[in-house]
Amino acid sequence: MSEHSLVDKAGRIGFTLVKEARGALTALKGDAALGVPAGDTRFVPPALAPIPAADREADDGWGFADTRFVVRPDGTTVLTGNRYSLCKEELPDLMPWFGKMLASPLGPDNRNEPHYPPEIPAARPCPALRAALAKALKPDQISDDPKVRLRRGHGHTGGEIWAVRYTRLERVPDLVVFPQSHDEVVALVKTCKAHGASVLPFGGGTNVTEALRISVDEARVVVAVDMRRMNRVLWIDPVNRMACIEAGATGRHIVEALAKYRLMMGHEPDSLEFSTLGGWIATNASGMKKNRYGNIENLVLDMQVVTAHGVVERPRQAPRESVGVNPTQFIFGSEGNLGIVTTAVVKLFALPEVQRYGSVLLPNLTAGLAFMYDLQQSGAVPASVRVMDNVQFHFGQALKGRKTGAAAKAKSELEKFVVTQVRGFDPHEMAVATVVFEGSADEVDFQERTLYRIAEKHGGMKAGATNGERGYQLTFGIAYIRDLTFEHWTIAESFETSVPWSRAIELYDRVRARVQREHEAMGLPGKVFFTGRITQVYPTGVAMYFYLGFYAKGVADPVAAYGALEHAAREEILASGGSLSHHHGVGKIRQDFLSDVYSESALKLQRELKAAVDPDNLFGAGNHAVRGRVALSTKTGESHE
Amino acid sequence: MSEHSLVDKAGRIGFTLVKEARGALTALKGDAALGVPAGDTRFVPPALAPIPAADREADDGWGFADTRFVVRPDGTTVLTGNRYSLCKEELPDLMPWFGKMLASPLGPDNRNEPHYPPEIPAARPCPALRAALAKALKPDQISDDPKVRLRRGHGHTGGEIWAVRYTRLERVPDLVVFPQSHDEVVALVKTCKAHGASVLPFGGGTNVTEALRISVDEARVVVAVDMRRMNRVLWIDPVNRMACIEAGATGRHIVEALAKYRLMMGHEPDSLEFSTLGGWIATNASGMKKNRYGNIENLVLDMQVVTAHGVVERPRQAPRESVGVNPTQFIFGSEGNLGIVTTAVVKLFALPEVQRYGSVLLPNLTAGLAFMYDLQQSGAVPASVRVMDNVQFHFGQALKGRKTGAAAKAKSELEKFVVTQVRGFDPHEMAVATVVFEGSADEVDFQERTLYRIAEKHGGMKAGATNGERGYQLTFGIAYIRDLTFEHWTIAESFETSVPWSRAIELYDRVRARVQREHEAMGLPGKVFFTGRITQVYPTGVAMYFYLGFYAKGVADPVAAYGALEHAAREEILASGGSLSHHHGVGKIRQDFLSDVYSESALKLQRELKAAVDPDNLFGAGNHAVRGRVALSTKTGESHE
Repeated sequence: MSEHSLVDKAGRIGFTLVKEARGALTALKGDAALGVPAGDTRFVPPALAPIPAADREADDGWGFADTRFVVRPDGTTVLTGNRYSLCKEELPDLMPWFGKMLASPLGPDNRNEPHYPPEIPAARPCPALRAALAKALKPDQISDDPKVRLRRGHGHTGGEIWAVRYTRLERVPDLVVFPQSHDEVVALVKTCKAHGASVLPFGGGTNVTEALRISVDEARVVVAVDMRRMNRVLWIDPVNRMACIEAGATGRHIVEALAKYRLMMGHEPDSLEFSTLGGWIATNASGMKKNRYGNIENLVLDMQVVTAHGVVERPRQAPRESVGVNPTQFIFGSEGNLGIVTTAVVKLFALPEVQRYGSVLLPNLTAGLAFMYDLQQSGAVPASVRVMDNVQFHFGQALKGRKTGAAAKAKSELEKFVVTQVRGFDPHEMAVATVVFEGSADEVDFQERTLYRIAEKHGGMKAGATNGERGYQLTFGIAYIRDLTFEHWTIAESFETSVPWSRAIELYDRVRARVQREHEAMGLPGKVFFTGRITQVYPTGVAMYFYLGFYAKGVADPVAAYGALEHAAREEILASGGSLSHHHGVGKIRQDFLSDVYSESALKLQRELKAAVDPDNLFGAGNHAVRGRVALSTKTGESHE
Repeated sequence: MSEHSLVDKAGRIGFTLVKEARGALTALKGDAALGVPAGDTRFVPPALAPIPAADREADDGWGFADTRFVVRPDGTTVLTGNRYSLCKEELPDLMPWFGKMLASPLGPDNRNEPHYPPEIPAARPCPALRAALAKALKPDQISDDPKVRLRRGHGHTGGEIWAVRYTRLERVPDLVVFPQSHDEVVALVKTCKAHGASVLPFGGGTNVTEALRISVDEARVVVAVDMRRMNRVLWIDPVNRMACIEAGATGRHIVEALAKYRLMMGHEPDSLEFSTLGGWIATNASGMKKNRYGNIENLVLDMQVVTAHGVVERPRQAPRESVGVNPTQFIFGSEGNLGIVTTAVVKLFALPEVQRYGSVLLPNLTAGLAFMYDLQQSGAVPASVRVMDNVQFHFGQALKGRKTGAAAKAKSELEKFVVTQVRGFDPHEMAVATVVFEGSADEVDFQERTLYRIAEKHGGMKAGATNGERGYQLTFGIAYIRDLTFEHWTIAESFETSVPWSRAIELYDRVRARVQREHEAMGLPGKVFFTGRITQVYPTGVAMYFYLGFYAKGVADPVAAYGALEHAAREEILASGGSLSHHHGVGKIRQDFLSDVYSESALKLQRELKAAVDPDNLFGAGNHAVRGRVALSTKTGESHE
């Protein structure tokens, strides 16, 4: 009998297996149909195998070290490795399409060769602190290796990766520690406090807000706490659908550990493979399937947080409570300013009985928005539904592999004919929705029926499950493209917002026009690359996600120029009723906009909370300007989005 | 054309009407099917008519002044007025059933006559403060009338109403003010601060946690801020499904104001008629239809809060954000300790196209729990589903009116025969589920089909829509019963918790056994009355709601005896894995349990937040022991659950 039958396909507990599971579980008996099993129904799952060496992550770019886009001499692009469906496909159209969009000479013979590692600032010496830490941690849990320190001093903004590859970071942590338990975190935080060091929590290092960057004015020793060794699932309660998980577990680790029992957390940010539970909490993350499972604040029932004043924790977890001001709520969005999350109790869901993809061609983005609006009102919103604009539709086409035969080519031509000639779609306007349905067979049938009925009302045309699956899965592979563009002199990055329904198209149009205008005014080369998609629906509006880039060969400071463009885009977003961020957060990249989104008293209250909880600024990440604006460079005028 | 067609039955915007709506709305044009209307789509609705004099609320008990249970000389009970379906029905079985359950001589000739008003403490003189307030407020916005002050110094715990009717409160506010706008609240808070007074926010006064009671050690002048005149809907955005509402609006007011446009907020606590938006936020309230619409923290997008340090507010509302630590989040559950909510932006929903009731007889409470468990996993959870235990099932029967004819009687007897003889239900074990379905016709069909299929699996028997509707609506009428029981020497009250699935029945059994044991050990008269229901489902567990009471004639201090019993019940709840509160909150009634549910550092952090935001304790409600335990009586040993 396999462990996988602990929960059956319909999400019901299969009790026969439970006796096989290790740990404290004794009370699970009988048949779910006759009653809910009683008592303490938690068990301790066996540890997963250690992370294989092959899964090493890159230090100088996105993702796994074995995975990167490479342009062959003939101009064809391939994604190395075999982790993604995109891998090994020959992509002849990608670079030519980029070149056309950027109106710039992209090609295999025009490379911007990276120079990793850059010059890395020396570590501040701290012999007394090291000696004290050595009492709590083993030698392999403490490192001052320059590359190790460098990697813990940045996330994944374009500017940071550009700096790591082409210039340098002026300040990085002085020491990196690798705790293996909650108690070790408690001990090391106490030690850092006693020695006047600053503590910087590090999860997956995937943030895109400069949240990990250290002020050039930070005079103290900075100790980065790499949480990745704390990745155990401490217990699973299959009956009450909860698990207690260490905060350093990555999304892919959590998925794997829970899937053995046909369970899951349902949180799928596009950084899923690399970002951690603790990072999700600290940035108030959103998952692509939040319609069904909720965003991180809906998924986390409880957490343990090590603060300057001790451990904030609770001895029990309840489904929902009214118990005064719950201080763990302060930690959502705290971005390392208030403490380190060490464990969290999260909600679980059964793996869906049915998972089905879908896609819909729509006349334009405006029709796409209207389709989503009606869908939101229908009560049949699928786990994920996204609408890509016209540029992104063509981007998806450019990411298609070489046609391998006459039949495939003919089919493709026929499809194009039907779409444009028979159905009358304008190829320069059409948009595409990709959909993931999850749930019971009944639910998925109901959602699918409803969705295609609504799509048709808005001039939509069913475009098949294959395109839908491809669109959703591309999210993971596409994340590697930013690094490819860098190597071809193009600086590019994503940013996002949320906005009420009635202002979404206005926001899109204004942001596009503004970046085009600014790009021209700044005298930047070629044409600006801009595309957007609507990624989430809420009763009150949508989340929108944008890519922005330009060809930067000859530009004196590409990072500063990109920063100025994105800053202009954010001004336009705010002027169009959009938010400062839907899920990326504030970090340092958006610190200058806080007074646009909070009253003076609200900002004061945030500062007062920080001062009360952490009077000595032990957790000195300095995000969202909680103790004033943070300078990341000694160059004057370095701008942040 | 009626205003009601602004949103059609299926929740789509009907634009034709919009031109008729008053206010700033100009941008709404076209057909929803063709696109989402663009721009600022808010409008200012006309004010509702003033609250009619007939809707006066009682000062000495629950609800409307014209509504109360009365026992006639023949022992028949009736509910006066005509507000509820129960009104004017003759209830011959109610008092005899209570008498039997309590094993006590309840009857029309054994009355415990209330003596409202009690002795009311004199107001502390504050001429300078009054003079200063008179500069910001009109004379009719300031009162030191004893009854007006008394009512703002308590909520609706059994102990409080017993004190108001039979004994006294030792400390009540010294002054009551009635602001009519956000700016007036800002001004009066500033004035109170300047004069060293304490500010006590007052909403509907329906809390059941002693949140409004003032410490006998409070030496300052206490100013209660009655928010009820701030009840306007400031704007409605029908496209983006938001409204900005003043915090003193009651639920019934909000329902009425929004229903004109076929919209609603979806928040339905059982205090809906009397509790206010600001109160819901401050107590972190839960609504009976939260499965569909969410609890209060899911429904409120933003708020304005007047604190000791200024106004916490935000210039924009977005569907969802990641913008650092949002201080308005501290206000959920703050119970008056941190400031006064003056307005909130809430999510809206279209009135459901279909609303249908249902009910299911189940063999026992354990089967009821299993039924709910499977239902939760099905993805087809209706807006509300509750399972009543056997006592509450019979309570419902005792609340049925006199059979008016032989046919009705025969039908009832036949039903009883089918249930017990044909289907084999044990009348001393059976439980009943009541259900409210809301949504589109499609959704409701899907939910209904799923629910009855699951119910059947658990031995359930469909018991009709009429019983379901009666069960749901009884919630509102039944709230008046507590005052009836007082008049017949019976002290009774409700309390609640949330608990993981696997411990729900254990918790129920243990609490019942414990209160029976304590009742006997304390030598209280007759038998203890105890009944419970499962009122909410979550992925991780349920909320449970209990009624507890006993015949108290001859008991020296009925309130203290009840407090001791409920305290024991709460100990048992915590020992069974239940929470301190699902939605009632902490107030002062549960202040002694906080160290059971938070770590020392968590409690410290709560105190630090309070000290930082309100260093002089301007908002001196003293709830959840944020500045230490609060004494409500000079008598030693007064216990709080």
